[in-house]
Amino acid sequence: MADLTRLKEDLVTANRILAANNVVDSFGHVSIRHPDNPGHFLMARARAPMCVEIDDIMEFTLDGSIVGPQPGKPYSERFIHGAILEGRPDVISVVHNHSPNIVPFTVVKKPCFCAVMHMAAPVGRNVPNWDIRDKFGDATNLLVTNMEMARDLAKSLGTRTVALMRGHGCVVVGKSLREVVFTSIYAELNAQILGKAMAMGEITFLSDGEIAAATKGRAGFTLERGWENWCRQVDRPYYPLAWEMGPGFSRTDK
Amino acid sequence: MADLTRLKEDLVTANRILAANNVVDSFGHVSIRHPDNPGHFLMARARAPMCVEIDDIMEFTLDGSIVGPQPGKPYSERFIHGAILEGRPDVISVVHNHSPNIVPFTVVKKPCFCAVMHMAAPVGRNVPNWDIRDKFGDATNLLVTNMEMARDLAKSLGTRTVALMRGHGCVVVGKSLREVVFTSIYAELNAQILGKAMAMGEITFLSDGEIAAATKGRAGFTLERGWENWCRQVDRPYYPLAWEMGPGFSRTDK
Amino acid sequence: MADLTRLKEDLVTANRILAANNVVDSFGHVSIRHPDNPGHFLMARARAPMCVEIDDIMEFTLDGSIVGPQPGKPYSERFIHGAILEGRPDVISVVHNHSPNIVPFTVVKKPCFCAVMHMAAPVGRNVPNWDIRDKFGDATNLLVTNMEMARDLAKSLGTRTVALMRGHGCVVVGKSLREVVFTSIYAELNAQILGKAMAMGEITFLSDGEIAAATKGRAGFTLERGWENWCRQVDRPYYPLAWEMGPGFSRTDK
Amino acid sequence: MADLTRLKEDLVTANRILAANNVVDSFGHVSIRHPDNPGHFLMARARAPMCVEIDDIMEFTLDGSIVGPQPGKPYSERFIHGAILEGRPDVISVVHNHSPNIVPFTVVKKPCFCAVMHMAAPVGRNVPNWDIRDKFGDATNLLVTNMEMARDLAKSLGTRTVALMRGHGCVVVGKSLREVVFTSIYAELNAQILGKAMAMGEITFLSDGEIAAATKGRAGFTLERGWENWCRQVDRPYYPLAWEMGPGFSRTDK
Repeated sequence: MADLTRLKEDLVTANRILAANNVVDSFGHVSIRHPDNPGHFLMARARAPMCVEIDDIMEFTLDGSIVGPQPGKPYSERFIHGAILEGRPDVISVVHNHSPNIVPFTVVKKPCFCAVMHMAAPVGRNVPNWDIRDKFGDATNLLVTNMEMARDLAKSLGTRTVALMRGHGCVVVGKSLREVVFTSIYAELNAQILGKAMAMGEITFLSDGEIAAATKGRAGFTLERGWENWCRQVDRPYYPLAWEMGPGFSRTDK
Repeated sequence: MADLTRLKEDLVTANRILAANNVVDSFGHVSIRHPDNPGHFLMARARAPMCVEIDDIMEFTLDGSIVGPQPGKPYSERFIHGAILEGRPDVISVVHNHSPNIVPFTVVKKPCFCAVMHMAAPVGRNVPNWDIRDKFGDATNLLVTNMEMARDLAKSLGTRTVALMRGHGCVVVGKSLREVVFTSIYAELNAQILGKAMAMGEITFLSDGEIAAATKGRAGFTLERGWENWCRQVDRPYYPLAWEMGPGFSRTDK
Repeated sequence: MADLTRLKEDLVTANRILAANNVVDSFGHVSIRHPDNPGHFLMARARAPMCVEIDDIMEFTLDGSIVGPQPGKPYSERFIHGAILEGRPDVISVVHNHSPNIVPFTVVKKPCFCAVMHMAAPVGRNVPNWDIRDKFGDATNLLVTNMEMARDLAKSLGTRTVALMRGHGCVVVGKSLREVVFTSIYAELNAQILGKAMAMGEITFLSDGEIAAATKGRAGFTLERGWENWCRQVDRPYYPLAWEMGPGFSRTDK
Repeated sequence: MADLTRLKEDLVTANRILAANNVVDSFGHVSIRHPDNPGHFLMARARAPMCVEIDDIMEFTLDGSIVGPQPGKPYSERFIHGAILEGRPDVISVVHNHSPNIVPFTVVKKPCFCAVMHMAAPVGRNVPNWDIRDKFGDATNLLVTNMEMARDLAKSLGTRTVALMRGHGCVVVGKSLREVVFTSIYAELNAQILGKAMAMGEITFLSDGEIAAATKGRAGFTLERGWENWCRQVDRPYYPLAWEMGPGFSRTDK
């Protein structure tokens, strides 16, 4: 299978995994930077993630213009992906969602979303909560539908992995498709766990040192273990990454 | 397929979708105004929504009298639908349910159900909580089983999209079947999210301007994206609306 | 099909329905008084409800002795069923479970389990919370394994429909198998809803008049609607009650 | 089937059961002491529990060295299992997980995890919450990746059945594979129930006498009832334990 086709198949799989794990519903989207052209990205046409097929994958420039075949209407919020990929050369893949345990944290006035468990370490501490009102007034429909809005959101994200969006959801970024899916799923779980813990008493959050160490430890093999499991969950073919196909533990054990 | 048959098929699908999304269980119902006669409406016989078949669809006048075939007993609360359709010419479709995250809001003395996320904007602010006790005493079985009760509930709804019913559930209205299903699902999600946020601290609700803008933006294409996904979820045929069948993005992008 | 066989088939179905609706897990049980001998009852051998087959149904006297075939070990808590059926000639069917949203109410010192929604009206007000410690000391394994314990629990239940059991679960009774399944499922839902409402503010409970009216209104047709739906849910044959097979709405509409 | 093969099949089944019951996700693991060599244990290669097959089962010495075939990379936290089996000759089987209702209890500063319902009696009172920071500093990735860390955790567990791990999860031990699976599932349920009860008021926990009696009563037959049900849930063959195959209730009923 050609590399690009395989990448698109994995992007379809990512759509299904995010839906099966309650990170997206009929809305929300995931993109990946084009492997041969860092100024382009791939993302489905505007369709519910569980319905996405390979022919729905479209190509865009970073300012959200369509390149090539147009199987349908694009997501009106595609600019989120473009603006983040534009400002973050280290980012390969972006998720925007309305993760149901995260949205409550976006509407509470006092910021409180932090990593409490090792699986969600990349969430970090004091996650910013971007409010579209601050710059675009209090009569928007909350959607990020042009580059100006999207760049403002990207600025709020800065060099982080997650930024909340008030009354809306969040964005999550990763250095690979597997990573952004993994972080999205565990950010949702972290929100569920933190919400319950907040009702019980004072909390010990991960320290900065723990966040750094656990994020660094999020190596390929860990992501691969989740990915294999989720492919099975959504009944999609699992294409192992090449480095993982030999006898794994001859590598550094992490 | 004749238009009326297709409409009834979509009504069957709506029943299944509401059940699969936990908005109705063995109880609750959804109606649609008759396309050729605004003084009539269509609704299933008294049957659990997940079990409804096309031959269960009955026709009623707005005062709840049966017109035509009688495949079985009608819902004893069909008057809710009649009274709302009677007073709201703008409404095409009505849902009555016991949405499990909304019911808690109906039994709390201090009113607090408002939209907190853009997907649920039509929920609005300070949703009324109709209490059958106010007019019909505190020894009813809480069911709305005649036109007098139903008109009182419709008055409480007024020009809104949602009204709560104390100790019971809610009513949701829409300008189409797809819209009322969509709003019912996201009203339930809004309740789940708001309940969690209320335990965390002070909340930023959607502003009036945001509610207006996000409600207006709830155009056909957005509803269609949910509808396609939910048809697949309940394994029912998806009949796209005609306007959506061309190359979508040649239309205004919203 | 002989009447007794059909009753046993319905008892198997009830076991599966309770399991599918999260009212029982691998534990918990449901019994029915023998239709030809009010001094006997029918219940499965000690097996997880989702695994129960028709050949697992055993017959017992009210003091828990086995009558007839012994396909396996009986439930060690069968005495709960015997003692309640002994003291309540009006009761036909009993459920004992560890309903997961009800158990929290059994361990809170201040009693607070009451009906808040019409579907759960038979739950009533100020549901008693039987504590095995009161009479049998604080070193039991909490199981009700003889008639003395079971009669003490039955005394706590009195003429009610539900009694909690501290640190354990509850008992639910009904005038039919369909009714006890229905009440068990809605008692669990009532607990889920009440738990959420208690975190939001002061609550309006159902009044005594509402409880009486809504309980009375729990007629055969309402139970039948749930039963048909749940039979489908667990993929079991649905045997309609005879009275329901004619054109339903020629009866009084309730 | 040879005994060892059957044991490995049961270990595969245990992996699937823990995943299906939300006790493990793509991470977490379960081990069993080698039946012929108490200084060795069996556990899957590093793979998501729902994906584990019989050829994934590896053999380890108690210090975590691999013995025999190496179908893949081992779990980096296998030392947890070795250190506990080393210090606890009474233990046959160990689970490590990130049980989602338990993790909140690990991040709350004031310890509060205790058994509140009889099914979870072995959880006991004042469950210790091991914090990797106490001995290994606040810049670890929280993983237990060597014998020194694992022995420190085992020391915190002491003679108990459950120990929490701050910001991470817990360990659960048992005298058999069935027992450790059973306790893991009910510890998660106990956490869910306790979390809800804590929001409602002051709580009655199980007494020491009740914990002792209910733990002692956790005999083979009780475990077997759960095991049969869970085998069906995950569509795996059920191999009954020999003692259970006769007419069960000729044995002492408890």
